[in-house]
Amino acid sequence: MPRFLKRLLIGPPLPNQALVRERLPKWKALAIFSSDALSSVAYGPEQIVLVLVSASLALYSFTIPIALAIIALLGIVSLSYAQVAQANPGGGGSYSVAKKNLNETVALVAAASLFIDYILTVAVSVSSGTDAITSAFPCLYPFRTSIDLFVLFGILMLINLRGVRESSTVFVFPTYGFIAGMLALIVAGFYQAFIIADRPPFTLPTGQVAWNSAALFIVLRAFASGCSSMTGIEAISNGVPMFKPPETANARKTTYMMAMLLGVMFGGITYLYVYHQLLPLSEQTMLSQLAQAVFARTWPYYYIQFTTMLILYLAANTSYNGLPPLLSLLARDGYMPRYLAARGDRLVFSNGIILLSIVSAAFIFFFRGNTEHLIALYALGVFISFTISQAGMVVHWCREKGRGWRLKALINGIGAAVTTLVAGVIVITKFIYGAWLVVILIPLLIAMFRKVHQHYQDMREQLRLPPESYRGGSFKRPMGRNLVIVPIAGVNRVVENTLAYAKTISPHITALYVSTDEESSREVEEKWRRWETGIELVVRYSPYRTILEPIVEYVNQVRRNAQPGDFITLLIPEFEPRKWWHRFLHNQTAWFLRTYFLLHEDVAVCVVPFRLQK
Amino acid sequence: MPRFLKRLLIGPPLPNQALVRERLPKWKALAIFSSDALSSVAYGPEQIVLVLVSASLALYSFTIPIALAIIALLGIVSLSYAQVAQANPGGGGSYSVAKKNLNETVALVAAASLFIDYILTVAVSVSSGTDAITSAFPCLYPFRTSIDLFVLFGILMLINLRGVRESSTVFVFPTYGFIAGMLALIVAGFYQAFIIADRPPFTLPTGQVAWNSAALFIVLRAFASGCSSMTGIEAISNGVPMFKPPETANARKTTYMMAMLLGVMFGGITYLYVYHQLLPLSEQTMLSQLAQAVFARTWPYYYIQFTTMLILYLAANTSYNGLPPLLSLLARDGYMPRYLAARGDRLVFSNGIILLSIVSAAFIFFFRGNTEHLIALYALGVFISFTISQAGMVVHWCREKGRGWRLKALINGIGAAVTTLVAGVIVITKFIYGAWLVVILIPLLIAMFRKVHQHYQDMREQLRLPPESYRGGSFKRPMGRNLVIVPIAGVNRVVENTLAYAKTISPHITALYVSTDEESSREVEEKWRRWETGIELVVRYSPYRTILEPIVEYVNQVRRNAQPGDFITLLIPEFEPRKWWHRFLHNQTAWFLRTYFLLHEDVAVCVVPFRLQK
Repeated sequence: MPRFLKRLLIGPPLPNQALVRERLPKWKALAIFSSDALSSVAYGPEQIVLVLVSASLALYSFTIPIALAIIALLGIVSLSYAQVAQANPGGGGSYSVAKKNLNETVALVAAASLFIDYILTVAVSVSSGTDAITSAFPCLYPFRTSIDLFVLFGILMLINLRGVRESSTVFVFPTYGFIAGMLALIVAGFYQAFIIADRPPFTLPTGQVAWNSAALFIVLRAFASGCSSMTGIEAISNGVPMFKPPETANARKTTYMMAMLLGVMFGGITYLYVYHQLLPLSEQTMLSQLAQAVFARTWPYYYIQFTTMLILYLAANTSYNGLPPLLSLLARDGYMPRYLAARGDRLVFSNGIILLSIVSAAFIFFFRGNTEHLIALYALGVFISFTISQAGMVVHWCREKGRGWRLKALINGIGAAVTTLVAGVIVITKFIYGAWLVVILIPLLIAMFRKVHQHYQDMREQLRLPPESYRGGSFKRPMGRNLVIVPIAGVNRVVENTLAYAKTISPHITALYVSTDEESSREVEEKWRRWETGIELVVRYSPYRTILEPIVEYVNQVRRNAQPGDFITLLIPEFEPRKWWHRFLHNQTAWFLRTYFLLHEDVAVCVVPFRLQK
Repeated sequence: MPRFLKRLLIGPPLPNQALVRERLPKWKALAIFSSDALSSVAYGPEQIVLVLVSASLALYSFTIPIALAIIALLGIVSLSYAQVAQANPGGGGSYSVAKKNLNETVALVAAASLFIDYILTVAVSVSSGTDAITSAFPCLYPFRTSIDLFVLFGILMLINLRGVRESSTVFVFPTYGFIAGMLALIVAGFYQAFIIADRPPFTLPTGQVAWNSAALFIVLRAFASGCSSMTGIEAISNGVPMFKPPETANARKTTYMMAMLLGVMFGGITYLYVYHQLLPLSEQTMLSQLAQAVFARTWPYYYIQFTTMLILYLAANTSYNGLPPLLSLLARDGYMPRYLAARGDRLVFSNGIILLSIVSAAFIFFFRGNTEHLIALYALGVFISFTISQAGMVVHWCREKGRGWRLKALINGIGAAVTTLVAGVIVITKFIYGAWLVVILIPLLIAMFRKVHQHYQDMREQLRLPPESYRGGSFKRPMGRNLVIVPIAGVNRVVENTLAYAKTISPHITALYVSTDEESSREVEEKWRRWETGIELVVRYSPYRTILEPIVEYVNQVRRNAQPGDFITLLIPEFEPRKWWHRFLHNQTAWFLRTYFLLHEDVAVCVVPFRLQK
């Protein structure tokens, strides 16, 4: 039944041969790789305004200058990333770049920050997507966490466990639909603002700002928050192998295209926020306020909210394409549990998908209602991996010294310097707002990676067969005896079955009865005598009515009397009830003994199940 | 570590000899057996008023007549119960009475309603006890469910798992403290009312009540709710063996004493409620309002709230003395899981104590804020067991025909008739308020008892050794072979260890390797060839990368080729990591195989653990 449900939900298993890759044209690649970056205009500009006005309404006028600074930064970073795409035709993100060009520690820093990024992409995008819908339908507002969790587990996790081709054409519609909606919104907004000009622009903050270090700090923090709009810019450089040839040239062009679109949308929307003097509200996103201001609540408004929701959920989906393969790389290198490297029966990294869903759900659960803090975390993680990537590229160019390597190294060097600066700004201005979590999480994750790695190395050494074991060397030493102990709870057919089995595996058998009162032990001894099994019965009295201790003691006594090379076997009679609920009617002594001895004692544990017929 | 915690919380184990009983003088027995009954004045009178005024304020004046009816009922029932005590010097409640005097079905009805009663005693008493405290300290009101659960698990469950002598003198103080407080409250209240007479009595409802069937229904329902004050009246008759000789005479006298006290307190408090025209409030109990009206918020007020809380928690504790032994009786008769009959290492019925705590917590959790519904359930369960007890006594007297048996049978007959009537009234008037739950729960519980009984009977038959097995008959048939299958994941020291063990138990060994890709299977085959184990290696290819199916298939193939009498053994190589967290780094294939084969396949399952050293 659970298996039937699994098949129904995630489909029949797929053989290895089904694993293929296809190549994408530029228009399709743009749609597929840019959902993360483009969707961030749904929350990025709002973050700038939010930080500014929560300090002082007088700082509202800094929105436009900050937006311009972010657009400039976007230009630098995308130029730099276009070169990453060129140098890494094999794809593979900042972990691979760092591992190839820098060293293990930096690679692990990159892995840790990527890990955090992917999870925060899911958390931020899913909750923002839900916000888009609850803005349109305020009656859904109280259920937003439930909606988040449903989207996470009921949609994203499930379709990814089924396995979706990330290249599927279905994914093209939300992206182009969103781009069309945003451009229409901006064009309509500018038309109203400059041609119809139904209201005078910029009336809100009139007084002079008292310019001091506190104000600078707020402005920098707003800038740091706004940088969350740049998340996802690296997606194309990680997906180079999926482009049609010439891969690197196409990837570079697509990066520029995406950056341009992002810049236009980010700038246009931010300008219109300021023009309409919108303020952040907790129950309605600013994008929804803007769409409402421009279109009123007509169908274009609902179109924009709907496509915004779609592209945000799609952006969350990009993490499902990104993190599980990263985890599998880490697992293959021995930094994460091995089973994260195994493809499930639908050929996807099922364990990674489930892990991502659970951890993201935890973040949503704890940070919901505090999207601002979540975004602070997010921006920091992203800029740390930006920095590592760029720095890796500088090393790469200096090493390779190909055509024009100086210019290329310079571009990436500038990129690295700028992103380092931004990361620094985020750490400083956002430290108490959650950035400290990243500062703690990254070293913790790295320590974990190393611990895991150490364990796998230790294990490999301990499991490796020494050379002298080959050519039959393993089995040349004289064979010991197998001392079999059968704990019994009485004289019955389960015990009969087990003793019959015991006689096939060894001539050295003892039955052990733990007695809690004299009467029952007399009865068992009497029955045993009449049974004539030819096997010795040992009776131990347990004054505290526990079964385990006397058995452990007896096993230790047998071990003391054993010779080197002897095996000790605990052979447990166990009956298996026919119906599941019958299990609750029996104490789980057999299960308990099995588990205890496997975990704590150096004995072989065998169970001969006796199946009840009714 | 968990064991250390257990010992710290519940103390060292106790040997069987520590199980003793002591005899109680009347004054102590009264305190110990009457907490349940007396404490019910904390919620019983309030329930009458609550039902009346929630229908119409005009019905308020019926409070006093209803209280008088309940006091009359109390007289009849306690007279009747004094006789139960006389006839059952061995103690043992309505289940034992019914089993001895009536038949199995009635006994199971009694057991089911007792089961529900005990649980509801805990739920009602704990939540009312907490209400006493939150009435005095309103700031604790929002935390009342948390307080309930803490009292339940942190105090009641824990001290009962440690084992408390129910006869401990500590329990005398809350009861006498509460009695003293209540009598002082009543005396002071009547003094103010009749001597000082600072306000005219009965001014609230003046209009004539429109007397119709709807009003009658409400009045009957209020009566039904008020009957919850009579819960616990049966406690003494169940504890007869604990009295000093002459046991039955002492028990009878104590029953009368308790009934008198209960009648005085119930009547006095209800009268004062009406005199002060108190109305039920959700955040303050009426008893707290009364104490406040009489004493204002001085120390006598706090004394009353505190002793009320204490006696209510103590009343909950009586269930911990009552239900676990009842469960153990049921378990010994085969109607409940056997392990409920076993005393834990502190000589208490630990499993029953834990079961009671969990089920009561569920009732508190689901009915909190609806104590009214909980009390409706409670009153019904109690009156069903009253009826069964009394009816059992009638049969008993008619059978024994001792001195004055006709009068005795008449008294119990009247008791049975009255309690049947009351139970009927409760079912009808309270049906939609939760009584239906009892009407459903009792048949369900009985069906469960019977199912469990049937299973134990079936099992006994299936496990019984037939006579021909004795005198060595079990082992006369020719011994079959032991076909050992060792699933391996590679060539390593775990496998080496397991194969060495396999060679001691059978000459018929096959190693089975499940391959998911060609390369690794070639490698394993090559290593195996060089190893020269003398054991055949079978390789199975798994196109869907699952391990289980190919192993199951191979086991089935071996089974088809086996001869009658052959055993099949699945011998699983398993390594045991040194630290607990290492476990998360390995897939649990060995555990999974073990569990699957034990549950589903007729093969012996053996594990030879290989312990990692670091």
